[in-house]
This record gives sequence, C-alpha cells and structure tokens, in this order.
Amino acid sequence: MSTSHGKALRADALRNRRRALDAATALLAEPGGPPKVEAIAERAGMGAGTVVRAFGGKDALMDAAVAELLEPLVLRGRQILERDGGPTALRAFLAELMAFQAAHYAVNDQLAGLDLPATTALRAELVRVVDAMLGEGREQGAIRSDIDPVLVTSLVGETAFTIAKASHGTPELAEAYLEVLMDGLRPRVP
Amino acid sequence: MSTSHGKALRADALRNRRRALDAATALLAEPGGPPKVEAIAERAGMGAGTVVRAFGGKDALMDAAVAELLEPLVLRGRQILERDGGPTALRAFLAELMAFQAAHYAVNDQLAGLDLPATTALRAELVRVVDAMLGEGREQGAIRSDIDPVLVTSLVGETAFTIAKASHGTPELAEAYLEVLMDGLRPRVP
Repeated sequence: MSTSHGKALRADALRNRRRALDAATALLAEPGGPPKVEAIAERAGMGAGTVVRAFGGKDALMDAAVAELLEPLVLRGRQILERDGGPTALRAFLAELMAFQAAHYAVNDQLAGLDLPATTALRAELVRVVDAMLGEGREQGAIRSDIDPVLVTSLVGETAFTIAKASHGTPELAEAYLEVLMDGLRPRVP
Repeated sequence: MSTSHGKALRADALRNRRRALDAATALLAEPGGPPKVEAIAERAGMGAGTVVRAFGGKDALMDAAVAELLEPLVLRGRQILERDGGPTALRAFLAELMAFQAAHYAVNDQLAGLDLPATTALRAELVRVVDAMLGEGREQGAIRSDIDPVLVTSLVGETAFTIAKASHGTPELAEAYLEVLMDGLRPRVP
C-alpha cells in the first residue's frame, strides 16, 4: 500500500466518521428520536456497516455522538459559574440542563447497557459543575450547609432529571420545581 | 351441576384466590422481587395455571395484589391527614410513602403495560391525599400559594418517587430531600 493511498484511506475514514457523527447528533437532537444505526446511516447517506466500522462499533458511535452533545453543556456550565457564581449560576444552569434533558428525554433509555466512557466522563463533569455551584453558594452563605453536600448534589441531580423528563411539553413544571428547589436550598432563617 | 357442588367449587375458587393473593403480596413486599406468576404459584403451592385462572388472568392477579399493598397506604394517609393536618401530615406521610416505594422500587417497572384498574384508582387516591395535605397547608398559610397547586402536587409526586427509588439503601437521601422540599414549599418570607 503506497503512502498516498494510505492518506486517501485515512481522509476517507475521517470523512465517514464526521458524516456519521453529524447524522447521529442530528438524530439525537430530535426530541424522542431513538438513534438506531440504520437511521443514522440513512441520514448520513452511508451503509450501516460503514457507519459502524467508522467508529469500530455501535457503542463507540453512540458515545462520540452523545459526547458531542454534552461537551457544550459542560462548557456552558463552567461559563455560567464564572459569570454568575453560586445559586444564581445554579438556577440558570439547571434551567438550561433541564431544557436539554427534556428535549432528549428518550435518549437515556436508549443508552442503557452501552459502554460509553466519554459520555460517562462528561456526565461526571456536569455533576462536578453543579457541585461547584452549590459549594460556592455555601461559601457565600446563600446555600444551606446543614445537609451533607454529597446528599444535596445527589438530590438536585435526581430530581432535576426526573422533572426535566416530566416537563417535556409542560415547561411550567420545571419552572415551579426550580422555585421550590432554590427556596429549599436557602439557609434556614434562624 | 348440583347446588352443593357449585358451592364447593366457589369455596375452592375463593381459597385459591386468597392463597395466590397472599403469595403475590408476600413476594411484592420483598425488596426488588419481581412478581412472576411462576414464583407466585410456587410460593402458594399451586400450579401456575390455577393461579392465573383464580383471577381470570395475570393482569387481574397483579392488580389485586398491588391493590392489597396500596389500600393500607391510602388509609394511613387519610389517618395522618386527620391527625396532623397540613404540612406536618405531608412530611410524615411522604416519609412513609417513600419508605414503601423504596422497598418496592422494582415493582413499578414490572407493572408497565399491564391493565390495572384497582391499582390506578388507588394511585389516584394517594395523589388526592397528598393534594388534600397541600391544600390544607395553603389554607393555614403554611404552604406557599404562589405556584399553581396542580404543578406543586405533580412535582412533589415525581420527585418523591424518584428520590424514594434512589434512596433504596440510602435513607439519609430521602431525609435530606424532605428537608429541602418542605422548606421550599413554605410561603416566601415577604
């Protein structure tokens, strides 16, 4: 195999990856759309086999596609934390996170059982951002510190995700939840 | 068929129903135990066919068994509402409800797609009890009334259930959630 032939193959493989990834993230961004390989291949105008080979497997394709969606969210969270700090950042970021989760509420079930290292790492990063917002709020005296921080982060994550799913089509529910949550997270009036 | 023969058959059918029901509720009460007909039949010392026939179908058996578990919860809720009233009742009842849900966290998935009229009616009754507690709290000025009551009931139901599932093995999480929720439901300090 000549070098130029190898380069052509590599460029081809990269193009295939990009096309499959764009198709997968586009399908993931459609509310409720379960991202099946066949649908991704059709959207990309490629064969299903070529799509899978471009990533070395279906799990890797899904992982890369979900990671592409989550990365901007993590960056956005860090930006909001930098800009607003503490509880103001938390509320603004949770609203964005929940809008994202409401739009992608069906994706999670679809991913169950897959091996998704990049997705898992980015999810942990989202939790760390929320945790940093809560921590900053505690330092400012704007978030209650009478409850174990680990439990607070966990209950915020669990409830925000559930309400995001339930608020698909009822955004007022997410708004009501954020009102109750943020008031509940304030320090107790002595 | 003679009348006495008919009576004997009826008594037999009732005994079978009772035995199957006791076995099913016992299995439902075991944490994480998915109530399969075969397991119910084995526990009851009956054939799987006899178990299903005693109820006219698997759905009807599950419906009767879950209803047997939910009925005391509904009664308990009404009792607590009568005894404590408003937010005190709400907190006490949610704690009991969540302990029940944590113990039976796997049952819900098992019931997906079944036709369960009695279970559905009792669940609606549980929501009505929570709703009555919130309403009484609002009248007392102890629960905030600046958010649509329908949204509040819905967010309490959704979040309590999720935290109950997540708190299986971590009861402190349910306790932390109740702290944040009850404080968040208080009227805003003017």
